[in-house]
Amino acid sequence: MTGQLLTKDHSRIGCERLRSKVMTAEDAAALIGSGATVGMSGFTGSGYPKAVPLALAARIEAEHKAGNPFRLRIWTGASTGPELDGALARVDGIELRLPYNSDPIAREKINRGEMEYFDMHLSQVAPMAWQGFLGPLDTAVIEVTGIRPDGSLIPSSSVGNNKTWLDRARQVILEVNRWQNPALDGMHDIYYGTALPPNRVPIPLIRTDDRIGQPYLQCDPDKIVAIVETDAPDRNLPFSAPDEAARSIAGHLIEFFRHEVAKGRLPQSLLPLQSGVGNIANAVLSGLLESPFENMTAYTEVIQDGMLDLLAAGKLRVASATAFSLSPEAAASLNDNMADFRDKMILRPQEISNHPELIRRLGCLAMNGLIEADIYGAVNSTHVMGSRIQNGIGGSGDFARNAFVSIFMTPSTAKGGKISAIVPQCSHVDHITQDVQVIVTEQGLADLRGLSPKQRAELIIAKCAHPAYRPALEDYYRRAKKSSYGQQSPSLPGEALSWHQRFIETGSMLP
Amino acid sequence: MTGQLLTKDHSRIGCERLRSKVMTAEDAAALIGSGATVGMSGFTGSGYPKAVPLALAARIEAEHKAGNPFRLRIWTGASTGPELDGALARVDGIELRLPYNSDPIAREKINRGEMEYFDMHLSQVAPMAWQGFLGPLDTAVIEVTGIRPDGSLIPSSSVGNNKTWLDRARQVILEVNRWQNPALDGMHDIYYGTALPPNRVPIPLIRTDDRIGQPYLQCDPDKIVAIVETDAPDRNLPFSAPDEAARSIAGHLIEFFRHEVAKGRLPQSLLPLQSGVGNIANAVLSGLLESPFENMTAYTEVIQDGMLDLLAAGKLRVASATAFSLSPEAAASLNDNMADFRDKMILRPQEISNHPELIRRLGCLAMNGLIEADIYGAVNSTHVMGSRIQNGIGGSGDFARNAFVSIFMTPSTAKGGKISAIVPQCSHVDHITQDVQVIVTEQGLADLRGLSPKQRAELIIAKCAHPAYRPALEDYYRRAKKSSYGQQSPSLPGEALSWHQRFIETGSMLP
Repeated sequence: MTGQLLTKDHSRIGCERLRSKVMTAEDAAALIGSGATVGMSGFTGSGYPKAVPLALAARIEAEHKAGNPFRLRIWTGASTGPELDGALARVDGIELRLPYNSDPIAREKINRGEMEYFDMHLSQVAPMAWQGFLGPLDTAVIEVTGIRPDGSLIPSSSVGNNKTWLDRARQVILEVNRWQNPALDGMHDIYYGTALPPNRVPIPLIRTDDRIGQPYLQCDPDKIVAIVETDAPDRNLPFSAPDEAARSIAGHLIEFFRHEVAKGRLPQSLLPLQSGVGNIANAVLSGLLESPFENMTAYTEVIQDGMLDLLAAGKLRVASATAFSLSPEAAASLNDNMADFRDKMILRPQEISNHPELIRRLGCLAMNGLIEADIYGAVNSTHVMGSRIQNGIGGSGDFARNAFVSIFMTPSTAKGGKISAIVPQCSHVDHITQDVQVIVTEQGLADLRGLSPKQRAELIIAKCAHPAYRPALEDYYRRAKKSSYGQQSPSLPGEALSWHQRFIETGSMLP
Repeated sequence: MTGQLLTKDHSRIGCERLRSKVMTAEDAAALIGSGATVGMSGFTGSGYPKAVPLALAARIEAEHKAGNPFRLRIWTGASTGPELDGALARVDGIELRLPYNSDPIAREKINRGEMEYFDMHLSQVAPMAWQGFLGPLDTAVIEVTGIRPDGSLIPSSSVGNNKTWLDRARQVILEVNRWQNPALDGMHDIYYGTALPPNRVPIPLIRTDDRIGQPYLQCDPDKIVAIVETDAPDRNLPFSAPDEAARSIAGHLIEFFRHEVAKGRLPQSLLPLQSGVGNIANAVLSGLLESPFENMTAYTEVIQDGMLDLLAAGKLRVASATAFSLSPEAAASLNDNMADFRDKMILRPQEISNHPELIRRLGCLAMNGLIEADIYGAVNSTHVMGSRIQNGIGGSGDFARNAFVSIFMTPSTAKGGKISAIVPQCSHVDHITQDVQVIVTEQGLADLRGLSPKQRAELIIAKCAHPAYRPALEDYYRRAKKSSYGQQSPSLPGEALSWHQRFIETGSMLP
């Protein structure tokens, strides 16, 4: 299977001395031993290696059949594609996964307790790898667009932690993917100024479009033990067209931005947009196409379909991210028109795209999704019913805490109305009330800035809850105010998580 | 009563034209109307105004007796003293309080639902005041050590948000406190380079002892409507001598630091220390006196007794903070020897002492207390039984998320064993599991770095829980692993908060 991906055209390997390292994915995979820690490229379905992980999975399956244990510790940028997480999880090849996962097979293994998953703030992955307590990194497997004559690497459609994996790994395997557009050359900005304390210095980025690094990744050529040539597309998920709820959420949010501009609290060009991935985020971006805001910028994790449209329309001046996260159609379209977009997009390492220093300096408008929010505005982004991981916290914590305005968006119900997105108390907390300033559902928008917990509760219930759940929330809150242990954030611990318990028992939070 | 604090000696007011503004506290208080928002100085019992708030409280009491409503919105640096929070809360004079409170009378009012309290990240107070959604600031009431001939102000024993209150307020009332040591002159570093986005730039601080600003506060003299002269001490709380639990916690933590130095993950001088306030924090600082670490530095919120001892012994080279938080004995002793300490201490605005950009750059070792931690390592720092506010989140979120190592410390039980500090699930979350890397109790230390939730749970139960509660935690965790909805962070929502419910009903978490 992996053989189909391989190519005999070495034109992407400009460095003569490295051509001798070209081999098959199977031979490259043989260089990775059981128990190894492997740092792979990949961020939201972009720029992940596509041949070596499949060959590794085949090898692991064979070893397991032969009765030999074989599992790996897998580090990446964020989520990857089915050829990586899916393939390795399916053969029980992953002992520990960090920092993020959205693969359905891996998710099932994690939620059955068969795989350890360390769900991390994405800005902290590279610094923590340097810090050393995660252990040594044995092998890096990194997809690149090409290798230049001097041995420097043209990055692929995501940057993620590639710089760090290349620097830290004992040995390096490169996948040179001919499918990636050569016009990616020059789009990246790889900052080599990070360090461990006490040697850290200010990161000299002041505007979203500042370039503070170099376009290429460096790698000690002596560490490169294999180069595998591939010709395979990134596999991203299609977006569905925004439904009515998504359009309502986008409408409320754009009205909020208009109001803030009118009050003089936001400039007409807004502030750098950060947008999570998904249909609602994309609906908001689509809504901005029709908005009065001009010369906008984005400082975010991923460039999605909606951002390409904003760039094409000239509404968005520049987008800085660490990866693309495009539907197959948008990816193909971008690939056809890469040269037109190249100067409007910058891809950076995720330690820079998500750096708290930069997010706070730039004053990002953070827009993220959620699983549930409670009446005080704490947000659960990760654990369904408090225990079952959906994806992970990703960069939401990096952005939410440091944003100029931290916004969370969700339909007010899920599972056909059987789950309320607004609950008496979150079953798991990823974002504390201080980091959640605006909550938007299709019902309305609650601007929580400057409010005490009780003021927040009244607003969230009134503005955001679905009418099917609002009376029960009002009832809970009224009784909590009557008999709570304290009145700063009234609660009834014997009942606070009963909605989740009811869902687990009956399949619905409805009484 | 306030009359006793006043002085006729104008020598602290070096600016001739401002002497005409000197008046009594009562006359100054009369300049503040009902419904006003008042920004006061004060951070952990240091540098708060001591006369005007008392006069205001008397005025409010008289107005209330006459049947007139009179309440204020009070902003400060953090906690203050009984002459401010206590006096104003006692007469029901506070409508909304931000960003922090530790006054017992105000705490009772809040927990009875009689006063709104917006508990904030301390780094965000000044930026949010500038952002505008908190509303206008009518009056600043700021204690200073003196006024220089050019009208600039020598700050007092805390800086807090004074710069911002002076800049933002429509009118300014100064309290010039003769009790404050004139040797404070030159100790402060007031950075005037902050801005709202899109005009923010890197903050040029690279070492704890860098001075990036000026020693004095600026204030438009035309805004100064009153100057009140006082001669009154800061009122801090005494520290109790470390008990055995505190000494054990300190021992575990210093052993951890030794281990990290031996592994090469920390330099021999450690990294800049951040330390919360209280007896355990102070015990750790005392423990460091006997440790092998030399040339340490502190980049923290407050300078406590233990830090003075470290400075005096030459173990600590420099301490940067925004305020003093000293026992009465240490405050008196420092006042007698201020000149010796002056060059080893820097007091900064809290937006700088607590700035995420700087905490991450410097790589602070953050050491904070907690109310409870759950088996996955989420931490509740603020709400007893999930609803009753103790103090507030303060700067713990600023430091914990951005620290090089984020450490939380607590005795394993409270209330004579009736409360376990380790619970199945936190009743309120201030620090998410990703921001809690080490938990220490007198039982032991759990190094949670790099671990998945289940690995964390096993370690926390084994190392940190009190033996009286460990079997119940093991039992809960075992049953959760059997029947949880998902296995990333096994939980039983019907039971997760039952320990809190039991405490509320029976006065003990013990079954």
